[in-house]
Amino acid sequence: MSELFSVLTPPAAWALFTSHFAPVVRSERVRTEYALGRVLAAPIVSRQDLPDFTRSTVDGFAVAAADTWGASPGLPALLTIVGEVAMGTATELRLGMGEAALVHTGGMLPAGADAVVMVEQTQMVDAASVEVMQPVAEGQNVVQIGEDVMQDSQVLAAGHRLRPQDIGGLMALGVVEIEVARPPRVGILSTGDEVIPPDQPTRPGQVRDVNSYALSALAQQVGAEPVRYGIIPDQRAALQAAAQRAFAECDVVILSAGSSVSYRDMSAQVIAGLGKPGILTHGVSVKPGKPTILALCDGKPVFGLPGNPVSALVIFELFITPVLRLLLGETPPRPITVAARLARNLSSDTGREDYVQVLLEEREGDLWAVPVLGKSNLIYTLVHADGSVKVPLDSNGIRAGEMVVVRIGGGNG
Amino acid sequence: MSELFSVLTPPAAWALFTSHFAPVVRSERVRTEYALGRVLAAPIVSRQDLPDFTRSTVDGFAVAAADTWGASPGLPALLTIVGEVAMGTATELRLGMGEAALVHTGGMLPAGADAVVMVEQTQMVDAASVEVMQPVAEGQNVVQIGEDVMQDSQVLAAGHRLRPQDIGGLMALGVVEIEVARPPRVGILSTGDEVIPPDQPTRPGQVRDVNSYALSALAQQVGAEPVRYGIIPDQRAALQAAAQRAFAECDVVILSAGSSVSYRDMSAQVIAGLGKPGILTHGVSVKPGKPTILALCDGKPVFGLPGNPVSALVIFELFITPVLRLLLGETPPRPITVAARLARNLSSDTGREDYVQVLLEEREGDLWAVPVLGKSNLIYTLVHADGSVKVPLDSNGIRAGEMVVVRIGGGNG
Repeated sequence: MSELFSVLTPPAAWALFTSHFAPVVRSERVRTEYALGRVLAAPIVSRQDLPDFTRSTVDGFAVAAADTWGASPGLPALLTIVGEVAMGTATELRLGMGEAALVHTGGMLPAGADAVVMVEQTQMVDAASVEVMQPVAEGQNVVQIGEDVMQDSQVLAAGHRLRPQDIGGLMALGVVEIEVARPPRVGILSTGDEVIPPDQPTRPGQVRDVNSYALSALAQQVGAEPVRYGIIPDQRAALQAAAQRAFAECDVVILSAGSSVSYRDMSAQVIAGLGKPGILTHGVSVKPGKPTILALCDGKPVFGLPGNPVSALVIFELFITPVLRLLLGETPPRPITVAARLARNLSSDTGREDYVQVLLEEREGDLWAVPVLGKSNLIYTLVHADGSVKVPLDSNGIRAGEMVVVRIGGGNG
Repeated sequence: MSELFSVLTPPAAWALFTSHFAPVVRSERVRTEYALGRVLAAPIVSRQDLPDFTRSTVDGFAVAAADTWGASPGLPALLTIVGEVAMGTATELRLGMGEAALVHTGGMLPAGADAVVMVEQTQMVDAASVEVMQPVAEGQNVVQIGEDVMQDSQVLAAGHRLRPQDIGGLMALGVVEIEVARPPRVGILSTGDEVIPPDQPTRPGQVRDVNSYALSALAQQVGAEPVRYGIIPDQRAALQAAAQRAFAECDVVILSAGSSVSYRDMSAQVIAGLGKPGILTHGVSVKPGKPTILALCDGKPVFGLPGNPVSALVIFELFITPVLRLLLGETPPRPITVAARLARNLSSDTGREDYVQVLLEEREGDLWAVPVLGKSNLIYTLVHADGSVKVPLDSNGIRAGEMVVVRIGGGNG
């Protein structure tokens, strides 16, 4: 089977995949208060100015700025207090020449006022008059109508993933319901006669199912809904039935294949049978993760991942996370990276991308990326790592002491 | 009220707070498969070696390495095939001198074998014998017992927040239930006669409740459970009753005060009445956020936040996120930062920390931090920002073109 396909570089595999893939974002309406981390399916346009009244930013006296010009501690401007602006109501006060009104932070400016003098720069003469010690400019200590947001302006774009401040910003505009991307359903199947459920004791030769759970967590992290189809017995008919069920029920299907050649070939045959065009590439020049299958079956992404957990997780972040972001309509986020100095030489073959797990260590104020020792198919190399360093396609290694970019999970490498 | 307290620098305020605070981490037992993002309340020690059998990392022939020494394509080593290792079972095969067994990736090594020759480096002679073209060293293409994890070793520390690979690693060891920190309950109260629920239309002078929702989302993001107590009317008795209820029901209480002086003083009085020692500092030399109250009442953290949303969010990340991490027992994570070049001069006063919201822009391959224009109390300065730059206490500003560290949310500044 695999001989029919040539091994592609990761960028070539991704380009081939996306040239065939036409993602459709499905959306649903949710309450904004529960929408942290959701991706907007439609832009948000403000139906109002924010604020929609002229507001003081300090505690003090609303004035006409011109009435304070030339004021100084030695020659203060004496103003008549006409009242106090009550919070939360449209004030009916109106300032004439030489008049001022007490106003609190957030309070509305009365008619005739165009600035606020901070209370610290005033001195009460009596209950009805106040001295202003410093001049204020027009607009000083005031937020103008529409200064935060103008009516009819777009405040958030479709594809934006909501942060706490975005929730706050939407509430400020009264946007209490929004259209967000529905989480894509990701069907996850494990195969392999050696694989057993994690709550069971292992007998020699057996390993517990790591991938179903680690891949579910990765899917959850990006905002998808994982659906686990369990460990499928080593029979073509059983794998095919399970794959077809997952394919019918989910938006993306992942087969985490048993690690032997026969399982891998069986996975490939089952994937090829799910729909057209089927397998796009079988083999990507990346370490770990070479025996990866990228497929599109009747428009739906299907992935065959290597059985070893490290390969499966690296390939998930390299290809499946970006596919899920496309299905969420998410604007690709800036990858989270830190710059660090490589602590040991890394060798690699040119023509292959290597992802090396590293631990970040601070030594005398410098950050070092220390490659995690151990064979690349051991799950605890990932557990003990803070991130990964990519050795690029055209490089045969990176020398100790060079600066490298360490990727802290997520996104398309 | 406030006159009794001096304004402290953020580090001094934090030091004073933590010198009085004795956080207690409460824990609960959860299924590992649902524990993504939870914080371990106890270290995880492996009860087994991983793997617990000697395993092949390739498809090939299990051999005694000594039987392949000196082998070459011109003079291959001829070995007798004694059988095939079935996946997922303890093989009963046993190699004598000059014997080999077919083994698949992940398969168990039979007795007498100490290495695996990749299938690509062999050539079948007939069904019962194989030629090996290259020598292998002892242990080559093999994962030894305990090579990933040794029995009785600690694999994850208490205080670690679980990532997808950690879920996988725990499953590999059969750890399907774990003890994690219970999410601290964070009671959030808003006050202010000008504040109305976000689903209502505003009249002039009114603003919608931003803080209850933005602060809830921040609490949720760090793994706490927000509890909203709504908008409390401007009456001492009502605020006191609501605060006492939140104080009884939650682990942390936040009063997001109305913005006028009278509200702030009322908040301070109510907080002071909740328990001993009460208010530790009223006023922190940070912009925005100066009128912040840090209090400990009978051991429980209580915060009075300024009413303006930007101050409230900045102060939450500066003080409340770290307090929640203490209540989760979380090892403080490395802050997520990027280095960028400052696009405009920033001025500041020495003796004050300034947090300036910035947008990240890539220009000809360089990353620039562009300060978001607009008054610091406008919520959309946060919405339009990617992160913030701190102008330190002892600095009176940063010049355009200088490299700055941009903080992308979370943690203690």
